[in-house]
Amino acid sequence: MKNFTNYIGLFTDHYEFTMAQGYFLDGRKETKACFDYFFRKNPFKSGYVIFAGLQDFLEMLSEFNFNDDSISHLKRVGFNDDFLDYLKDFKFNGKIYSVKEGEVIFNNEPVIIVEGNIIETQLIESLLLNMINFQSLIATKASRIRLTAGDKLVMEFGLRRAQGLSAIHASRAAIIGGLDSTSNVYSAYKYDLLSSGTLAHSWIQSYGDELTAFRKFASVFSNNCVLLVDTYNTIKSGLPNAVKVAKEMEVKGERLRAIRLDSGDLAYLSKEARKILDQANLRYVKIVASNQLNEYLIKSLIDQGAPIDAFGVGTNLITGQTDAALDGVYKLAAVDDKPTLKLSENIEKITLPGTKKLYRYYNGENKFYADGILLKEENEIDEIYHPVDINKCANVQGLNKEELLAKVFEGGKQKMKKESVYEIRQYAKERLVLLPEEHKRFENPHIYKVGISKKLLNLKTELIKDLKR
Amino acid sequence: MKNFTNYIGLFTDHYEFTMAQGYFLDGRKETKACFDYFFRKNPFKSGYVIFAGLQDFLEMLSEFNFNDDSISHLKRVGFNDDFLDYLKDFKFNGKIYSVKEGEVIFNNEPVIIVEGNIIETQLIESLLLNMINFQSLIATKASRIRLTAGDKLVMEFGLRRAQGLSAIHASRAAIIGGLDSTSNVYSAYKYDLLSSGTLAHSWIQSYGDELTAFRKFASVFSNNCVLLVDTYNTIKSGLPNAVKVAKEMEVKGERLRAIRLDSGDLAYLSKEARKILDQANLRYVKIVASNQLNEYLIKSLIDQGAPIDAFGVGTNLITGQTDAALDGVYKLAAVDDKPTLKLSENIEKITLPGTKKLYRYYNGENKFYADGILLKEENEIDEIYHPVDINKCANVQGLNKEELLAKVFEGGKQKMKKESVYEIRQYAKERLVLLPEEHKRFENPHIYKVGISKKLLNLKTELIKDLKR
Repeated sequence: MKNFTNYIGLFTDHYEFTMAQGYFLDGRKETKACFDYFFRKNPFKSGYVIFAGLQDFLEMLSEFNFNDDSISHLKRVGFNDDFLDYLKDFKFNGKIYSVKEGEVIFNNEPVIIVEGNIIETQLIESLLLNMINFQSLIATKASRIRLTAGDKLVMEFGLRRAQGLSAIHASRAAIIGGLDSTSNVYSAYKYDLLSSGTLAHSWIQSYGDELTAFRKFASVFSNNCVLLVDTYNTIKSGLPNAVKVAKEMEVKGERLRAIRLDSGDLAYLSKEARKILDQANLRYVKIVASNQLNEYLIKSLIDQGAPIDAFGVGTNLITGQTDAALDGVYKLAAVDDKPTLKLSENIEKITLPGTKKLYRYYNGENKFYADGILLKEENEIDEIYHPVDINKCANVQGLNKEELLAKVFEGGKQKMKKESVYEIRQYAKERLVLLPEEHKRFENPHIYKVGISKKLLNLKTELIKDLKR
Repeated sequence: MKNFTNYIGLFTDHYEFTMAQGYFLDGRKETKACFDYFFRKNPFKSGYVIFAGLQDFLEMLSEFNFNDDSISHLKRVGFNDDFLDYLKDFKFNGKIYSVKEGEVIFNNEPVIIVEGNIIETQLIESLLLNMINFQSLIATKASRIRLTAGDKLVMEFGLRRAQGLSAIHASRAAIIGGLDSTSNVYSAYKYDLLSSGTLAHSWIQSYGDELTAFRKFASVFSNNCVLLVDTYNTIKSGLPNAVKVAKEMEVKGERLRAIRLDSGDLAYLSKEARKILDQANLRYVKIVASNQLNEYLIKSLIDQGAPIDAFGVGTNLITGQTDAALDGVYKLAAVDDKPTLKLSENIEKITLPGTKKLYRYYNGENKFYADGILLKEENEIDEIYHPVDINKCANVQGLNKEELLAKVFEGGKQKMKKESVYEIRQYAKERLVLLPEEHKRFENPHIYKVGISKKLLNLKTELIKDLKR
């Protein structure tokens, strides 16, 4: 495989190059543009999204350029020589404002704003969308799993079912959303994550009989021994053999750490397993469960009182089932400082014009109350308006507030402090504490208020009128 | 981003290393093992799967090793020094047998067989599953879209909604399944694919008015001019302006190639657009449609007689919605040439023991009739048995047949001819022609027969008896 890092500039939709060449040939390479990134719908029926992927996006952005190979390819495809000469020295020199990684965000608010010339801002669209959409999706899924699992250990096991190389970033996003560890050793290496994993059915099978396989594993991994008990028959064979080995370990002054259930009725089997272990005076042996788990199944297991101490989640987390994509978009908001918008038959899809800022207002209990989208030059506003139903407005006068967008990239370099993945996870956790419970509800969460300032509303209304003329 | 190519060995589940170290410390590094790759369920309610990802898997396999950095990481994680010394020189020296890329395959048949020592065969599990599961999923989705779209042009537009770097391989798999081109320039470069793409709403917005934006685009891209007509209002503005520009182009001896619809009711709008274009004597102008399309929506558009000439498909293809993963597994079938199996409460999940071969039998019309799984030493058999319901059997005596598994990797090298992605697409297309229509049906396809030989059935039955004793 060729070194992807040297070709990041090509990880771009063809039409971005078409448009960039068009702007270039039309003499517009100094034209300024401002784009907003936002998404339209919270995935998984969630009341919120965890913002993730920023650090990776910015790192790739600083390597977003075109080597000789890339230029030759674009030439073969038919792009213009003068344009390609321009691309040879391309570097994104614009500015990027963003919310923090790990932030709790909502649909229809700009969480990234990109400013620069129209060519550079257009060319980075695909990379931005690709990285932010995906990691935010997975961090949100992981966050829902974490909220359901409470303080129990939750491990990400998805590499084998991940969508190819998506696993590299998915394992990172899963930790940001609240998981404890990953099975993916490459991501653990790259991002300094905890990795974990013990044994598969093949280990058991390879020894011919289960008891021998358990004993061998216990002898090699005496200080971290987890036995998989469902290769043949969990109740009749796996558990009795695990108890036997645990007792043999005790004689040597060792302790069996856990047993793992990977099939069958996990509620029933975990209760039986707990009974068998307790009767054998093995109260310290934990129970790990896996097998197509998601937030709903984990909730059901917990509701049934299943005595499971740790969960392994794979496919459903790593691919974001049931929503495999976050619908984030990148829309032009201003050209040469002139506000612009895109109309739509669907009123909710009309975009917000102009260069904006994003405030978060706090309620009396110092929890998140509402987010307000303002024009950049605004500061104090009294009310925020529903972006579509202008009869709905909320008073934010005098409320504590914070500005969510900060400059994170300028002059080809990151302008923010690099944080570890576990630091970002901690930030997400702290922010979620500030989100009122009704927005974190598992089913039909209360919709969080996101409104726009009166000035922005008026600007939008005027522009729509202008365009319809 | 660090160069992933140098770290492919780490793109592995933690537990593979745990088991590998266990085998190593238990003195089993010469123990032989044979693993089968198969999947259990066809995705998307499809009657078949298109096998894809082999070439990428084998290329990555030949780079599957551990540099000093990787070894240091594994040491920090706590792996054993002697085992790590062994890993320093690791190279997969086993043999791999596989069906061809682009092959039409079915659930519960071994389509890859891996033979080697137990450490090397175990260590490559995650990479194999990751690459083959994903590309086969996407190729299958693309194949369904192709079958529905007939001969119409279908373009893959998914990069922005792809699961991060999954796009690299997804765009390739989409072509294998039958699509014509991709928007992803990196994959087009890497795999020699056609890429395509014209303009977004931002181009239109950036010029302030639609007519100017159309004229500018037509002047720069006169020989490949596709105009996006839904930025403001498709019927009232986009189409009249496109007609105006098309007529201006005619004066210059140029031709507008197509208009693109990206929102609204595509059936209604395409019919209106066709009328408007035809009335303006612009019969040659094609209509391209996009916006959350999948095989069902394309079928519905075609059923409604929508005069759409080309489709762009994004999110639903690139992520494999509604099934975001193929459930492929990698199961131990023999240890030191001794057959083994994994039991399960669920009879369908009991694995097939022993080293096997896979035959495809042809019916009287020389179409695919059934696939038979035999023990490797078998050749001519008269009947194949349902792997679970042994009362079901099919006569295959005297039928034409072919062997589907061939050696593709040995001695650290690929043993097959490298084919271009479009050659693989062609192979998949030809093989699908041989699959009877009822298995390609869109809804409730007829289940294709996959059976096992009498000898394999007996071996399985005996082993189950042994294990239950």
